[in-house]
Amino acid sequence: MYEPGEFGESLRRLRERRPLIHQISNYVTINDCANITLAIGASPVMAEDVSEVEEMVSLAAALVLNMGMPNSRKIEAMLAAGRQAMKQGIPIIFDPVGAGATKLRIDAADRILTELKITAIRGNLSEIKTLLGIGSGTRGVDCIEPQEDNQALAKRLSAKLGSIVAITGSTDVIAYNNEVCYIHNGTELLAGVTGTGCMTTALIACFCSVANNAFAGTIAGVAAMGIAGELAKQELAKNEGLGTFHMRLFDAVSNLTPETLSHRMKVEFCSEN
Amino acid sequence: MYEPGEFGESLRRLRERRPLIHQISNYVTINDCANITLAIGASPVMAEDVSEVEEMVSLAAALVLNMGMPNSRKIEAMLAAGRQAMKQGIPIIFDPVGAGATKLRIDAADRILTELKITAIRGNLSEIKTLLGIGSGTRGVDCIEPQEDNQALAKRLSAKLGSIVAITGSTDVIAYNNEVCYIHNGTELLAGVTGTGCMTTALIACFCSVANNAFAGTIAGVAAMGIAGELAKQELAKNEGLGTFHMRLFDAVSNLTPETLSHRMKVEFCSEN
Amino acid sequence: MYEPGEFGESLRRLRERRPLIHQISNYVTINDCANITLAIGASPVMAEDVSEVEEMVSLAAALVLNMGMPNSRKIEAMLAAGRQAMKQGIPIIFDPVGAGATKLRIDAADRILTELKITAIRGNLSEIKTLLGIGSGTRGVDCIEPQEDNQALAKRLSAKLGSIVAITGSTDVIAYNNEVCYIHNGTELLAGVTGTGCMTTALIACFCSVANNAFAGTIAGVAAMGIAGELAKQELAKNEGLGTFHMRLFDAVSNLTPETLSHRMKVEFCSEN
Repeated sequence: MYEPGEFGESLRRLRERRPLIHQISNYVTINDCANITLAIGASPVMAEDVSEVEEMVSLAAALVLNMGMPNSRKIEAMLAAGRQAMKQGIPIIFDPVGAGATKLRIDAADRILTELKITAIRGNLSEIKTLLGIGSGTRGVDCIEPQEDNQALAKRLSAKLGSIVAITGSTDVIAYNNEVCYIHNGTELLAGVTGTGCMTTALIACFCSVANNAFAGTIAGVAAMGIAGELAKQELAKNEGLGTFHMRLFDAVSNLTPETLSHRMKVEFCSEN
Repeated sequence: MYEPGEFGESLRRLRERRPLIHQISNYVTINDCANITLAIGASPVMAEDVSEVEEMVSLAAALVLNMGMPNSRKIEAMLAAGRQAMKQGIPIIFDPVGAGATKLRIDAADRILTELKITAIRGNLSEIKTLLGIGSGTRGVDCIEPQEDNQALAKRLSAKLGSIVAITGSTDVIAYNNEVCYIHNGTELLAGVTGTGCMTTALIACFCSVANNAFAGTIAGVAAMGIAGELAKQELAKNEGLGTFHMRLFDAVSNLTPETLSHRMKVEFCSEN
Repeated sequence: MYEPGEFGESLRRLRERRPLIHQISNYVTINDCANITLAIGASPVMAEDVSEVEEMVSLAAALVLNMGMPNSRKIEAMLAAGRQAMKQGIPIIFDPVGAGATKLRIDAADRILTELKITAIRGNLSEIKTLLGIGSGTRGVDCIEPQEDNQALAKRLSAKLGSIVAITGSTDVIAYNNEVCYIHNGTELLAGVTGTGCMTTALIACFCSVANNAFAGTIAGVAAMGIAGELAKQELAKNEGLGTFHMRLFDAVSNLTPETLSHRMKVEFCSEN
């Protein structure tokens, strides 16, 4: 269904066009999200005051709504930005950070999913479960669930919302309509650095702003982060650890060629029925 | 009184249990605080809206209140989070960043120390002096004071509040009840990177969430940061400077073994009378 | 007019005095701005609540107003901090981040320039154009404009406001009164890391707090960042990219000697008429 070369082609297009990616993010990972956006070849802008987000979105090619460190002002800004993005028809990528942990986050996610038409959602298993109303607190249980369940959950949420759903973890699963795929890239070290999920979401937005379709864009974003993790890990010397690994993620993304992206992606498309 | 192996044991326990550490921090150092928490083996969560902090604390094993970049909303959230932590009986670690600089901070520190029962306080000398009502502005005078004074001040504040008090500087001193110790780890380079104090506070919270007692946890957190500084400095090449040193702090903490922690700690317990 | 050794002398003075630099900044780049301030030898403090900024400014030797991620609370704090800085006669450095993108930013910049006497402004070409009322959106068009126009624009804004104006880009231009100079340091990689503009602004503030005059301080700050970029790029191995480059900027600034600053600066003073 997808030619590997297509994903490399998206990366080439991204670097040519340098699309502006508007991100309403959290302050823990905001610098990393901006830098990963630059590293892949796009241009980030972070604006979150309700009085300016609509104008900023009007300049952008995609919008990221990242629910980390929420408050009522930021939630209103997300909704206003999202409505503007819908008017323009640009992709909206939603990251339900810590969705199940508090009522504030459950309610915010609920409003975002009710009032906006989200293009793609990326979360870990417990966050996606929360969005399905079967969450169990904020801590992931990713290791326990067999792969089949993740696929079923992603498909269920996708069918419910009409959005692409990506559950990232040791194996990533992405579902949309009758399409499902697994991505077998990545390393466990990615869980040792804060914000690698947020950065994946930012990369999805970058690729969706130029991809032929958002499902392919989501695949490319998730795979790019996984490959970056593999490359960053591969170069670690014995006395190097999470600090060096963190830095090398940006090296890997900035040096990622269309060829490397195409060739290293391990996407497994599942037949449906 | 303390077996060095006990501190290593705490680190082993930390990595087994991966306790959730809730941190209300400042935006300058928030990414580093989350990453140092991951590097030592715990799990960070940053939430600061008053409407969600109580629920988030209810999932946590320790709470950090970091007073950098204060405002009235964040101070209310700190107090609400602190009250919830007291109900649960989990450790509360307080970092009075820039305590003496402004009335907002003096008043906030005063409310936090009056309304909450703080487990441990970590600050530099001028911050601790401010909490004793003898502060002299925000700039440290750490180099001028002889070591004896730091010990006396730490003991005085500890007795006044019933909290562990750690004054970090070229030599760190930690006091609680009749116990006082010096920690002789560290390097002057730690003062060249913003947030090394905040990260030390985060490490104290990590260790206190699993240690046999909070005094031992505070010692382990302060020593771990000092040792990380020594290891990060030791590997610096001639053309490397504060950027590389900063990154290697995370390498050192993520690679820190229970054995290295136990063996490199230079704790000097003082006899009391 | 300027002896190269004078700039090196400023750096020496900076490291001796360790001036406190108060910065109201944005959360994307705030950690980097604090760390670059420490790396050059000054001492950063970030405070932005309107209830404490005046007291904090009263301790400071220079003030940075960085307009990234604005909101009404922060704008009021910037104005209050700026008024206090004017009372004390300390330099105020303004960074009009994304000035032309939204009405919130245009209005904020207008108030800052009307109500305060700014010492130096640093922006990219599109931001400076916006301040002249000839902006065309937030995306730079730096590559299109011939050098002559940048000089004319910088001079025009400087004459209008009585402030030093620095337009940074592939070649930097700095104008004040009848003085104009180009700075030919730097590398295109600086555009690949978020916050290198913000960090340049922070360095200008550091140098202005100790320089003989603010024009020389602005030159030193802009040149220091350009040289840091050159040094960071020079050491990049083939498999290293924007992550390593980013880190090495701090290495380069922390290792920058007065001699290197003086000798590597490529300042071209333009004769006026």
